[in-house]
Amino acid sequence: MTDSTTPTTRMNGAESLVHSLLANGVEVCFTNPGTSEMHFVAALDHIPGMRSILALQEGVATGAADGYYRMTGKPASTLLHLGPGLANGLSNLHNAKKAGSGVVNIVGEHASTHIALDAPLTSDIAGIAAPVSHWVRISPTAQTVGKDAAEAVQAARVSPGQIATLILPSDTAWNEGGVVQDAVDMPVPAPFDADYLDAAVTALDGPDSLLLLGGGALTEDNLETAGRIAAKTGCKLLSEWSNARLERGAGRVFVGRVPYPIDMALEVLAPFKRIVLIGARAPIGFFAYPDKPAILTREGAEILPLAGAGADLTGALDALCVATDSGQTPPADLVAPSVPTRPSGPINRDSLAALIARAIPEDAIVVDESVTTGRAFSPATKCAAKHTWLNNCGGSIGYALPAAIGAAIACPDRKVMCLTGDGSAMYTVQSLWTMARENLDITVLVFANQSYQILRGELTNVGVGNPGPRAVDMLSLDRPALDWVQMAQSMGVQASRVADCDGLENALQDGLTCGGPNLIEVML
Amino acid sequence: MTDSTTPTTRMNGAESLVHSLLANGVEVCFTNPGTSEMHFVAALDHIPGMRSILALQEGVATGAADGYYRMTGKPASTLLHLGPGLANGLSNLHNAKKAGSGVVNIVGEHASTHIALDAPLTSDIAGIAAPVSHWVRISPTAQTVGKDAAEAVQAARVSPGQIATLILPSDTAWNEGGVVQDAVDMPVPAPFDADYLDAAVTALDGPDSLLLLGGGALTEDNLETAGRIAAKTGCKLLSEWSNARLERGAGRVFVGRVPYPIDMALEVLAPFKRIVLIGARAPIGFFAYPDKPAILTREGAEILPLAGAGADLTGALDALCVATDSGQTPPADLVAPSVPTRPSGPINRDSLAALIARAIPEDAIVVDESVTTGRAFSPATKCAAKHTWLNNCGGSIGYALPAAIGAAIACPDRKVMCLTGDGSAMYTVQSLWTMARENLDITVLVFANQSYQILRGELTNVGVGNPGPRAVDMLSLDRPALDWVQMAQSMGVQASRVADCDGLENALQDGLTCGGPNLIEVML
Repeated sequence: MTDSTTPTTRMNGAESLVHSLLANGVEVCFTNPGTSEMHFVAALDHIPGMRSILALQEGVATGAADGYYRMTGKPASTLLHLGPGLANGLSNLHNAKKAGSGVVNIVGEHASTHIALDAPLTSDIAGIAAPVSHWVRISPTAQTVGKDAAEAVQAARVSPGQIATLILPSDTAWNEGGVVQDAVDMPVPAPFDADYLDAAVTALDGPDSLLLLGGGALTEDNLETAGRIAAKTGCKLLSEWSNARLERGAGRVFVGRVPYPIDMALEVLAPFKRIVLIGARAPIGFFAYPDKPAILTREGAEILPLAGAGADLTGALDALCVATDSGQTPPADLVAPSVPTRPSGPINRDSLAALIARAIPEDAIVVDESVTTGRAFSPATKCAAKHTWLNNCGGSIGYALPAAIGAAIACPDRKVMCLTGDGSAMYTVQSLWTMARENLDITVLVFANQSYQILRGELTNVGVGNPGPRAVDMLSLDRPALDWVQMAQSMGVQASRVADCDGLENALQDGLTCGGPNLIEVML
Repeated sequence: MTDSTTPTTRMNGAESLVHSLLANGVEVCFTNPGTSEMHFVAALDHIPGMRSILALQEGVATGAADGYYRMTGKPASTLLHLGPGLANGLSNLHNAKKAGSGVVNIVGEHASTHIALDAPLTSDIAGIAAPVSHWVRISPTAQTVGKDAAEAVQAARVSPGQIATLILPSDTAWNEGGVVQDAVDMPVPAPFDADYLDAAVTALDGPDSLLLLGGGALTEDNLETAGRIAAKTGCKLLSEWSNARLERGAGRVFVGRVPYPIDMALEVLAPFKRIVLIGARAPIGFFAYPDKPAILTREGAEILPLAGAGADLTGALDALCVATDSGQTPPADLVAPSVPTRPSGPINRDSLAALIARAIPEDAIVVDESVTTGRAFSPATKCAAKHTWLNNCGGSIGYALPAAIGAAIACPDRKVMCLTGDGSAMYTVQSLWTMARENLDITVLVFANQSYQILRGELTNVGVGNPGPRAVDMLSLDRPALDWVQMAQSMGVQASRVADCDGLENALQDGLTCGGPNLIEVML
């Protein structure tokens, strides 16, 4: 990092924060502020350049920062109110951490003189932040805020992306003496593990070998390289179950996902005796179950970790391409465009998947938290117009609506489709208001199965056969039924309810062309 | 604690958990379960006696446990899904901790064999729990779950009430070998600090002395004792700003609250040269502000901590009553019933307070998170029918709707009024669904000022004069306006909107007699 700082007029710490963030490429702030952050609000008010997006619950802000990073590769900041505000944003920070998203997570704290008094809102903020953060710092003075902010951005940009939590006592905001930290050097990805290269070349040979891709290996260009390697070596391609960002659709190399259900994953992975990892980890079960394995690869499979999530994944693929002499081989699994026949009649999983495949606009961003309903979406949308697909990587449901906000802020010229179960959507339902406030071009599909459907399956998976009525009731959301049309309208988002294929096709067409947020409740 | 355990038939850890909780007086579980908790769901299903209340977001569950404890003095359990589920419940656990509410907070964890694999949902659960918990334990085996559950109840019942977090790896739930822990001895409050008794007797002498009450000192009987002491000694009575539970209204001794605004608090506390604390802490500012003090008592005031929050507060008051020979003195500040004149015309703060005072039913529970709108409620409702008033004690807004659920579950024969700002209500808006599902007798008043009104004042307090349009916009909730009638109806709660006094009086009458949940959006 450089030591240069901009000579400035007298400013307080809050002002130095905003200037330093801007100087280091942070241009968006997802916020739910409180009293201890009022000077930051004032600084955001009079310093141009930082777009501030208000959320009505902090999980919306942190999930939006996750989606924003995935689509820009640049961290946004949050602005959260003390320990409890941070706590409300914690589960989506967990998801962002697992996705490898960089976030500059700014948390206000009481004035340093006030902390020892143990006021009602006093808590161990650093302790709350630690489990979801790669980097935590409490800035001690107004003079240090600018430099600490720049170092938080550096920490957030450690590849593939990290959670950097900067805690700012309110006196560091209001005291004079702020110093702007100019742009500092940003970290570059670590080199891939070249020691594995020769072994990887040997390993990738025929259909019992697998090139397993994750994270930044799933860009359009990297997939093309992987497709060439697969065509040349005969290896298979797969991605992890959860991908922070996957480029898909017509004209791109298709890569399937390791399935979520244990038995299906075991079956899909059983053929592979040799597995090369690029940006992916060796597949394990999402959950443990009695009498099922957690390691999903075949026993004795050779696992070659050529490049971890933080490494230079493009470099790894390019090197592998050269070493296998695949550069001139046309890619395998290149997808030809194909539009499914228009289904009619009642909506079921297959017709739903077909309608979504038909509707995906060119260059759309699909944020997927459809859980059980969406198991058929991945294969069905394989040949749709080219698009970007975002999965929940941390498993804490309630990620999709906020991440859609972040994606839409990041890419105002692209359409966002948000696919979510009704149970999932409820965790961060306040997102709808921010979508309306910012007039974001997001079409939300809520799949109203009126239950925690996945848990009904999980009851069986963990060995609980024949659950009784009280257990079933605890997984049911139909007493009362949620009315998603009213829910959306209550927060200023236009909405409709569809129960058959024609209705959904029309609603998707209307929603995707209306230019603003809209919600379609899909009755299942 | 006793060592006796009930000889039982073969059972798994989950079943031993439910039996042991029941044996130790925990009869309600506020839950949002996931895969790792499916065996607990199954156990709740087939073991009678534990009432399970489903929440659609974990903050609802933890806030409900807070409200339940305040009204019963008995801890409820929660059942939360892994680290992220706990994280979503953290801010209301913070509030419960600050209120001195006991909660048995049960968090599922991956199977012990699965944790090292670092699955998507893996996190440092104990680390997330620590900042809001007095007691954290990970139960290692099915055999230990029952005993650990009983000890969690013991920990939760340490006076005035504590947060006990028990983390249960899923194999401890599904493995056989569960052992039921029968009822164990529960802790009793510590004695008050008798060393201060003589000094307290001397200190309480005339109107420059204050008896400051908090926590369990605010029961009807204890207030009567305090009223006698005040009448006899000439001291004044006050309570803290935030009270976990305050008994009020006609026929009871009135105790005012130390005001929230610093300047008002300084003025109210300025006369007191000697302050005796019973269940209260010496008053400090909720927040620090530039150029304002944080210690609110007059300089040099003598502070006598006769009894801390966890001590025997009734014993302290009784001893003080005896030592001051106040037992036969009629209490000071005994409230005579008085109904305010029915106001008419537009709703303003005064007419709103009068309408609420008129409406409070005998024995109602008022859960108050009205923030700015409610500043006039406390004096205005002084002479209402006798009722119980619950404040937010941790300052993390989003406590009121969940706490109202807990209060209504605790006291099915009492009416609950929930007073909340619109900004506050949004944090845990999912509460409305649980109210509908359980058909709870709760009347929710949402004060729709369409802004974070308190923060507009705080901008000025921290020295930010004349905020610009972007700052004002960041504190405004009117773009788009929230439609609380649609919001409530979307979750199955009947609702109406009122804009004048007649409308509100009628809506309150309808709501408080309808027997189920209802919401009134009060346009301000």
